[in-house]
Amino acid sequence: MTELNAAWVAAEAKALSNWGRWGPDDEIGCWNLVTPQKVVEAAACVRRGHVFSLSLPFGPSGPSQDPIPGRGNAIHLMQMTGTDVAAGVQDRAFPGSGKFADDWVVMNLSTSTQWDGFCHVFHEGFAYNGVPSTAVSSWGARRNSITRLKDRVATRGVLLDIPRLHGVDWCEPGIAIQPEDLDAAARAQDVDVRSGDAVLVRTGQLAQVASVGDWRGYAGTGKAPGLGVRCGRWLAEREVAAVATDTWGLEVFPYETPDTIAPLHQIILTHCGITIGEMFDLEALAADCAEDGVYEFLLVAPVLPLDGAVNTPVNPQAIK
Amino acid sequence: MTELNAAWVAAEAKALSNWGRWGPDDEIGCWNLVTPQKVVEAAACVRRGHVFSLSLPFGPSGPSQDPIPGRGNAIHLMQMTGTDVAAGVQDRAFPGSGKFADDWVVMNLSTSTQWDGFCHVFHEGFAYNGVPSTAVSSWGARRNSITRLKDRVATRGVLLDIPRLHGVDWCEPGIAIQPEDLDAAARAQDVDVRSGDAVLVRTGQLAQVASVGDWRGYAGTGKAPGLGVRCGRWLAEREVAAVATDTWGLEVFPYETPDTIAPLHQIILTHCGITIGEMFDLEALAADCAEDGVYEFLLVAPVLPLDGAVNTPVNPQAIK
Amino acid sequence: MTELNAAWVAAEAKALSNWGRWGPDDEIGCWNLVTPQKVVEAAACVRRGHVFSLSLPFGPSGPSQDPIPGRGNAIHLMQMTGTDVAAGVQDRAFPGSGKFADDWVVMNLSTSTQWDGFCHVFHEGFAYNGVPSTAVSSWGARRNSITRLKDRVATRGVLLDIPRLHGVDWCEPGIAIQPEDLDAAARAQDVDVRSGDAVLVRTGQLAQVASVGDWRGYAGTGKAPGLGVRCGRWLAEREVAAVATDTWGLEVFPYETPDTIAPLHQIILTHCGITIGEMFDLEALAADCAEDGVYEFLLVAPVLPLDGAVNTPVNPQAIK
Amino acid sequence: MTELNAAWVAAEAKALSNWGRWGPDDEIGCWNLVTPQKVVEAAACVRRGHVFSLSLPFGPSGPSQDPIPGRGNAIHLMQMTGTDVAAGVQDRAFPGSGKFADDWVVMNLSTSTQWDGFCHVFHEGFAYNGVPSTAVSSWGARRNSITRLKDRVATRGVLLDIPRLHGVDWCEPGIAIQPEDLDAAARAQDVDVRSGDAVLVRTGQLAQVASVGDWRGYAGTGKAPGLGVRCGRWLAEREVAAVATDTWGLEVFPYETPDTIAPLHQIILTHCGITIGEMFDLEALAADCAEDGVYEFLLVAPVLPLDGAVNTPVNPQAIK
Repeated sequence: MTELNAAWVAAEAKALSNWGRWGPDDEIGCWNLVTPQKVVEAAACVRRGHVFSLSLPFGPSGPSQDPIPGRGNAIHLMQMTGTDVAAGVQDRAFPGSGKFADDWVVMNLSTSTQWDGFCHVFHEGFAYNGVPSTAVSSWGARRNSITRLKDRVATRGVLLDIPRLHGVDWCEPGIAIQPEDLDAAARAQDVDVRSGDAVLVRTGQLAQVASVGDWRGYAGTGKAPGLGVRCGRWLAEREVAAVATDTWGLEVFPYETPDTIAPLHQIILTHCGITIGEMFDLEALAADCAEDGVYEFLLVAPVLPLDGAVNTPVNPQAIK
Repeated sequence: MTELNAAWVAAEAKALSNWGRWGPDDEIGCWNLVTPQKVVEAAACVRRGHVFSLSLPFGPSGPSQDPIPGRGNAIHLMQMTGTDVAAGVQDRAFPGSGKFADDWVVMNLSTSTQWDGFCHVFHEGFAYNGVPSTAVSSWGARRNSITRLKDRVATRGVLLDIPRLHGVDWCEPGIAIQPEDLDAAARAQDVDVRSGDAVLVRTGQLAQVASVGDWRGYAGTGKAPGLGVRCGRWLAEREVAAVATDTWGLEVFPYETPDTIAPLHQIILTHCGITIGEMFDLEALAADCAEDGVYEFLLVAPVLPLDGAVNTPVNPQAIK
Repeated sequence: MTELNAAWVAAEAKALSNWGRWGPDDEIGCWNLVTPQKVVEAAACVRRGHVFSLSLPFGPSGPSQDPIPGRGNAIHLMQMTGTDVAAGVQDRAFPGSGKFADDWVVMNLSTSTQWDGFCHVFHEGFAYNGVPSTAVSSWGARRNSITRLKDRVATRGVLLDIPRLHGVDWCEPGIAIQPEDLDAAARAQDVDVRSGDAVLVRTGQLAQVASVGDWRGYAGTGKAPGLGVRCGRWLAEREVAAVATDTWGLEVFPYETPDTIAPLHQIILTHCGITIGEMFDLEALAADCAEDGVYEFLLVAPVLPLDGAVNTPVNPQAIK
Repeated sequence: MTELNAAWVAAEAKALSNWGRWGPDDEIGCWNLVTPQKVVEAAACVRRGHVFSLSLPFGPSGPSQDPIPGRGNAIHLMQMTGTDVAAGVQDRAFPGSGKFADDWVVMNLSTSTQWDGFCHVFHEGFAYNGVPSTAVSSWGARRNSITRLKDRVATRGVLLDIPRLHGVDWCEPGIAIQPEDLDAAARAQDVDVRSGDAVLVRTGQLAQVASVGDWRGYAGTGKAPGLGVRCGRWLAEREVAAVATDTWGLEVFPYETPDTIAPLHQIILTHCGITIGEMFDLEALAADCAEDGVYEFLLVAPVLPLDGAVNTPVNPQAIK
């Protein structure tokens, strides 16, 4: 069997690369495949009018209670409160019957449910489409910012529920999902994966977190189930626009490659131009899909259009 | 003619109030009217597959360059950069071919395009559904947080383009849009407003900002066109779920009531449970609607589900 | 023996209260006792010219790795970096030989070494000098802000080293230091405590933290040695301007009063107007004092004069 | 007359450089000259016991109301308030008589009164002592952080009051103070400048700001009086440890060098290892010095010891 390592990643990345495919200035990758016709097709997936938020909480109840360095849960602070109102604090500034509350957030953009931008991961010093890493400075991303997708992230979504396929509550941490699992899930769930789709792969780790009642180890500090690096080819061949899981980092952890981290990111995000979603809450959606047997839906998951941003928090809406 | 003042606002608010209509614990107001059937109807508005982001920028290029106290543009700061990568800074932490960029935001949640939560405005000390202002403390909103809408904001959107109705480039600052304007626009544009809709009213102020090339005065410190307070009844009678404009504060400014500010907020947000959107960029959408003559669309505009948040930044997607 | 509880605290607070002593508008409490003559006396303590920083680190290496809700270590983020410079990112903005780095901090003002302001703790709804709690709103402290001390915190400092008194490495967590310990330490160290002094009491907890190599449990989530509530009278009678320890919260934890928390704060901060310092690093200073036998020094520990701030980070300088 | 330009700066910087003087690993520059004996000498300047805070406000009333990109006034936000207390919000979390307020700050470290660290300015890609710019990444300053000075900034301070020398209220914006002015001021004020001193040069710009009643143009966006680049040699020859002014950027603005900005920073901060202070409020101190004729004092101005920080806010205490 082929050894999975940085050299393999480089070869696979090169073989699957979309650099240049949509011109030298392209910054939206496989979202080019989401044509107006595709959007119409996606909207046609709305049959029962049920809406699912796929977002985990942001803030103190969020998943980053045990974060890697530099991350952590969002900090929510108030600018004006209703307790101030009750105390008469606003009476001088806002005379009359109307008073106000207002608030702030401080957050790492990867604190909870998120899309990774095409400038989040560099492979050998380059981001998607050959953009040099130096395009991403402390002044933000001059190219490949996630904000380029501000009117793009509406397409057909497909759920592949791996634990249900295998009849378990969740995939155990450290288990790598393989292309064969993806195929089997699609077959079992009678759903096909098409060009321009967003594929959501459920590992069930959130069910495990719920069973423990604690986020500890979830946000990057513990083992996790996830996609194996060989899934890159599967996704690239199907020309998906995005792929997401219910785990912190999409990929199985520990990584399958001993000499480089986040290998699947390097292949699909950096070379294929496939957007990666992380910490998607797929529990309620998966239960519904299991019930009605329909694993496709309209996915609308807009980015926060922040100047030069790398990643974005997102509250994805799956509409069936 | 009736005098518009706080007493009038209180009477109108009481007459139109939805407090208790959906039970004493309701926190989603007119979104109760967005049934699954309504969502299906909304999705049916997707005909050509064109997606419009209605969000203004967040960050240095955003609209809050000249803000009221306590606001300001979002601050974007980096945690890891590609310039660090080029300098070899990450080599020890992340050996191998994969390197990373990561980022933070600090922002007032009303810095740019936003939804106001049902705890943003208090009328005589109470928020929507009779929630006392003390439910909104420095620990956030215990009730009526915008986060309650996390899987709600998908419905039929309708654009009413007031300057196009009147054959002007924009409504002048200080001009109050009246119910008659809304009716005339709906008629002229051959679109009806229905229960559960989100109504987007274009004043054209962004066209004026663009003509000046400067945000100064836009974000709360200058005069603005906007809805007059009499529009509250129009909106309430049509049972819309949300209303938004392309201005900073929805309402005409200076306000029509000399003795209280934000009177329309007090009526429709606080009493009717109609969500208010502000700083929606309606320019491209309006141009498209004028071109194809279709003023309805699917609007998906998900909130950021931040624990206890009052308001939320949003990147609304209008899909035709 | 008297039972220590909220009723006892209220009685003791009332007995020792300085409310009104320096007029109804006073906001600086016992710092009124630091006269110019006192400052001259303090400066005379500088004999060898040795300077000790009593500050713990701020940022990732700081003490708040295991914080109570709402706190946490300071977040340091860059606005401009030298890696950007190396990549040429600043060449256009700053042509020529000079380039720049710049940075930000986000922090709870109690994240590390700090002074508590006279508006930090309320006793039965009032802060120092009878200021109602409503003077401290989400717009900051209208009265009793720590910023009132901006030119005040320079006085004679005295170290009382309790573990050295008892011949141990540190006081065990949960041990309450009693007035008798303070007296014995002053005697053993041949130092007197005078009006207007800042008294620094070493518990040695930082030596214990160092022996463990881990901040876990230090910043408010574990047991701690500290001052017992009876020390309030001792401090009040000596008319000290400030008291600080090397622990998170000055007081022994768990608290001695079952029915109210932070009882000593309520007495001395809120009623006596004695400023409280926390997380002071007394290790190097204590070693020096043990060596030269001199336990007095000039203490200069200026507040960060932030509009309306409650607490302040501080880097206290002890100069012998 | 010699032309002042980048080449001149490079030559002057090389001529005056202290790189290597205190070893290849030195990170504290001319603070090496502040010996214990010097600290004793400085403390002897305390004669009347008068303390002056030299800090401008931080927060909404601070000087950065009209900032350069990336800066701005500090943002103060509350975590717990007294209005919450009044509303009973803390009753469950903190039963009993004691309740609390707590707060946060978000700020650029150069928002108001500050010390520039030795990693703030790079000359031709290098910081003080030949440290390459790449030592300052988005993870902070690995070398030359201002935090290295945590127990250093206590020395003799000297005020040179230039407008009083010239009998004017303030130096006009754009006026460059020359070495001859510094000499004349020292002579007129009968004060000498010695090795290890901190020299505070008053331009009077704050008097001008006060006369206007508005910070507009002060924080980097307008013209300013300040030190001319020839003052570098004067400061270097006197071996001062620090120099500060009451202006935003120490140097006259517009700069005297057409082809590079902040030329004096490049010479004295980067090459000499002289710490630079900015936005020091010298008004009250200057008035006092004029009155008693004594222009020397103890200056204690401790840095905020934030891991890897470039610059630091500071509340300098001048004690006479």
